[in-house]
Amino acid sequence: MIAKKASETLTISTKVVLPNDTNTHGNLFGGQLLAWMDVTAAVSAQRHSRRVVVTASVNNVSFGKPIKEASIVTLEAKVSRAFNSSMEVFIDVYVENQTSGKKVKRNEAIYTFVAVDQNGGPIKVPELIPETEEEKERFAGALRRKQLSLILAGKMNPNEATELKKLFMEV
Amino acid sequence: MIAKKASETLTISTKVVLPNDTNTHGNLFGGQLLAWMDVTAAVSAQRHSRRVVVTASVNNVSFGKPIKEASIVTLEAKVSRAFNSSMEVFIDVYVENQTSGKKVKRNEAIYTFVAVDQNGGPIKVPELIPETEEEKERFAGALRRKQLSLILAGKMNPNEATELKKLFMEV
Amino acid sequence: MIAKKASETLTISTKVVLPNDTNTHGNLFGGQLLAWMDVTAAVSAQRHSRRVVVTASVNNVSFGKPIKEASIVTLEAKVSRAFNSSMEVFIDVYVENQTSGKKVKRNEAIYTFVAVDQNGGPIKVPELIPETEEEKERFAGALRRKQLSLILAGKMNPNEATELKKLFMEV
Amino acid sequence: MIAKKASETLTISTKVVLPNDTNTHGNLFGGQLLAWMDVTAAVSAQRHSRRVVVTASVNNVSFGKPIKEASIVTLEAKVSRAFNSSMEVFIDVYVENQTSGKKVKRNEAIYTFVAVDQNGGPIKVPELIPETEEEKERFAGALRRKQLSLILAGKMNPNEATELKKLFMEV
Amino acid sequence: MIAKKASETLTISTKVVLPNDTNTHGNLFGGQLLAWMDVTAAVSAQRHSRRVVVTASVNNVSFGKPIKEASIVTLEAKVSRAFNSSMEVFIDVYVENQTSGKKVKRNEAIYTFVAVDQNGGPIKVPELIPETEEEKERFAGALRRKQLSLILAGKMNPNEATELKKLFMEV
Amino acid sequence: MIAKKASETLTISTKVVLPNDTNTHGNLFGGQLLAWMDVTAAVSAQRHSRRVVVTASVNNVSFGKPIKEASIVTLEAKVSRAFNSSMEVFIDVYVENQTSGKKVKRNEAIYTFVAVDQNGGPIKVPELIPETEEEKERFAGALRRKQLSLILAGKMNPNEATELKKLFMEV
Repeated sequence: MIAKKASETLTISTKVVLPNDTNTHGNLFGGQLLAWMDVTAAVSAQRHSRRVVVTASVNNVSFGKPIKEASIVTLEAKVSRAFNSSMEVFIDVYVENQTSGKKVKRNEAIYTFVAVDQNGGPIKVPELIPETEEEKERFAGALRRKQLSLILAGKMNPNEATELKKLFMEV
Repeated sequence: MIAKKASETLTISTKVVLPNDTNTHGNLFGGQLLAWMDVTAAVSAQRHSRRVVVTASVNNVSFGKPIKEASIVTLEAKVSRAFNSSMEVFIDVYVENQTSGKKVKRNEAIYTFVAVDQNGGPIKVPELIPETEEEKERFAGALRRKQLSLILAGKMNPNEATELKKLFMEV
Repeated sequence: MIAKKASETLTISTKVVLPNDTNTHGNLFGGQLLAWMDVTAAVSAQRHSRRVVVTASVNNVSFGKPIKEASIVTLEAKVSRAFNSSMEVFIDVYVENQTSGKKVKRNEAIYTFVAVDQNGGPIKVPELIPETEEEKERFAGALRRKQLSLILAGKMNPNEATELKKLFMEV
Repeated sequence: MIAKKASETLTISTKVVLPNDTNTHGNLFGGQLLAWMDVTAAVSAQRHSRRVVVTASVNNVSFGKPIKEASIVTLEAKVSRAFNSSMEVFIDVYVENQTSGKKVKRNEAIYTFVAVDQNGGPIKVPELIPETEEEKERFAGALRRKQLSLILAGKMNPNEATELKKLFMEV
Repeated sequence: MIAKKASETLTISTKVVLPNDTNTHGNLFGGQLLAWMDVTAAVSAQRHSRRVVVTASVNNVSFGKPIKEASIVTLEAKVSRAFNSSMEVFIDVYVENQTSGKKVKRNEAIYTFVAVDQNGGPIKVPELIPETEEEKERFAGALRRKQLSLILAGKMNPNEATELKKLFMEV
Repeated sequence: MIAKKASETLTISTKVVLPNDTNTHGNLFGGQLLAWMDVTAAVSAQRHSRRVVVTASVNNVSFGKPIKEASIVTLEAKVSRAFNSSMEVFIDVYVENQTSGKKVKRNEAIYTFVAVDQNGGPIKVPELIPETEEEKERFAGALRRKQLSLILAGKMNPNEATELKKLFMEV
């Protein structure tokens, strides 16, 4: 199984916030953004694995300043790390200034997907090769986040979470 | 500001998985479930604060076994802890067995909301009083989760995260 | 076949009126409310019969004061009476005051469902046991409504509609 | 205010049952049909009154044989009678045979609308002139249905419901 | 295969522009109108061919003055000419004046459909008989438009496009 | 007003064909694709003009082989030529092979947009600079297509359509 570059998994989706997508304050409805991110990130994971993928978890999504109706929203998803059969995907959400065209980052989210075979069972995926600084940083963080979620779920002894433990020990 | 019981924030929403809600495997589409949870949890936070609320973050959502088309899905949301102007909300998702009527828990999610005033600025919310065992446990965990997200965002020194540090030190 | 209590069929669904759900006056679109009631009532009938159910008729829905965008709407459905293979379901629609949290009843609707087997043919359902005053009153009225609709459809001789006839005779 | 002919209020809407419109049995979802009927009937009432109209009630809708995905469905709405500010509208639903093109009636529904002024208050509408046999029959029945709903709502003494009383007396 | 009259293919669809259908200027969203026209025109082609039809091309759609939210929109589709297995369909879009009830034409579109058999292969359709002036004019134009699209696609030599060539030669 | 490069207007949108987007054959519904193209192309025109844009016309869309449910669809829109206040936009639609990841072009469409000021009146847009072979070819064709549509609308004398006339004369 040949490792793939993070850049090969880049998935872009451009949206316009239509009235249909707004909450009662005239801003992009959080639930709609979560759905958009899910689809865009799933394509990224599918491009890495060339397999059917299913959403395993939404690890973290922060909502900052609300996004107004009529905004042009761009979602960019890239796999940050591949584990055995699972892939962590980062989604960056940008809003474009109407006059200057400048894109400003507004949200960041982390989703995890699992590649499955015809029977729905997990199946191995290629390794991921990070290249840019940001890709490498997210790659490193992915292990820490995995350990953390295993500990919080009671599936790992904190002592074994070497990566994560350093955070508290070395201070 | 009078503290409120967790039970007063209970919000129930019953859904049927229609074809409109499915992904390409004939199961409930992850993005749709995220949107359902967002609305149900927002009502719970609104019932606690009696204020307009906006989604601040989705902290954790795990997707287990897929939920089939035609399933009866019940979402139950309850505020787990109130901080200054923010509220952590747990959403439990149940699927009902057609023949026996037995409800089985399928997903668990944690969302955070912020109560805002007319100008969109944060505004104080009442404290939450947990009563049942589960409510108390989730109340305690909320502080740990808050510290953790502050550390990961680089806004807190791990040394100050007393609650969280114990997890690693006491082992 | 063991009779079931009305309370066992209670189905609650909490909604927020999003822009997507409004008519051109900024109020909840009647057609959307009818669809919400259909799903909620169907679950109630399914809980009573533990069978696949199909909508047989919408007997009466009154729309009172319009429901504004952003309102929290709660639908509560309960089977009011079970006949051979059909079930009459009452749906009460409440709107919640944002500040006080007080729920005010805004609509009332009656739908009828039929339980069907694998071939789509009607199949027997358990009897319903009404317990509260309201449940008993609706249970009694259900027979009158059934006779009435049979007469109006030319399927019953008014003379046989003993329950209904009293209404006119005893005055 | 000049009376109008029933035929002037005819409103036709042709639909195809797309996957998006189906329930979990692959048939037209009842809630979707109710929404389609609401819009089509509202246009009919608007054509009669030349006013903004709001749905007042759904008096009766019978669902017969299910309507399959991919069916061509035609809704035909016509005002059956105008009262002071309210209008009763009949909606006939036809399904078209793919091969022969023959249209078969599948559903019949009665909705009531109220014409409103700028403040949402009721406003007078023109009288309706029925011309065909069916239009005259539905016109006559409208009074009976109105009396009936007033009696059931406790707003009319059965003795005053002259039209309706005959039904039981003359047998 | 018996030729059919254009009038037999008339398909009418009446819509109300709901908030759900608007763009960010509060007018009917172009994409939504394109979708409405697609369904209405497909039914017209299906009525002519009594076959499953698939959209082959959208030849021309002009959007004039925007259509405001709450407008009553009527789409009228009619087959303008049948070729071997394809049918050209005209869709006229009217907006109705709320007070006078007068319908004003706002858009005109031309779609082409192909009738297909069970395997998705093209299948012969009956000829079309135009009767009114407009039907005859559109029938004649259809050949010119077909030649034009073949030339632009490089599938026809301009010299063979006898009908179209006249347009330039005879000037 | 500084001319802009075609490449600066590139707008990418990645979609997955969900059940919600399909027609009754389980393929991408034509109307849905038309709506997706409208939004993606509008963003492209907005990026060129930095103005609010409205759809003026859909000049040509060809639908080839149907696109199956679950397909990954990528829409790429680029302005092909800017006239006074209008912009012609090409949209290329690709489908991605699940196993090889190879993208195959499936549809091509041409939409025209007009840039408008606050009052909805047309406003001047920058010129477009084509760079690649394909961009230059589409730029040249845009004039021919504009002349053609003016002639067909009776707004231009075929004699003046110099570009277009050559097509027929030089043969």
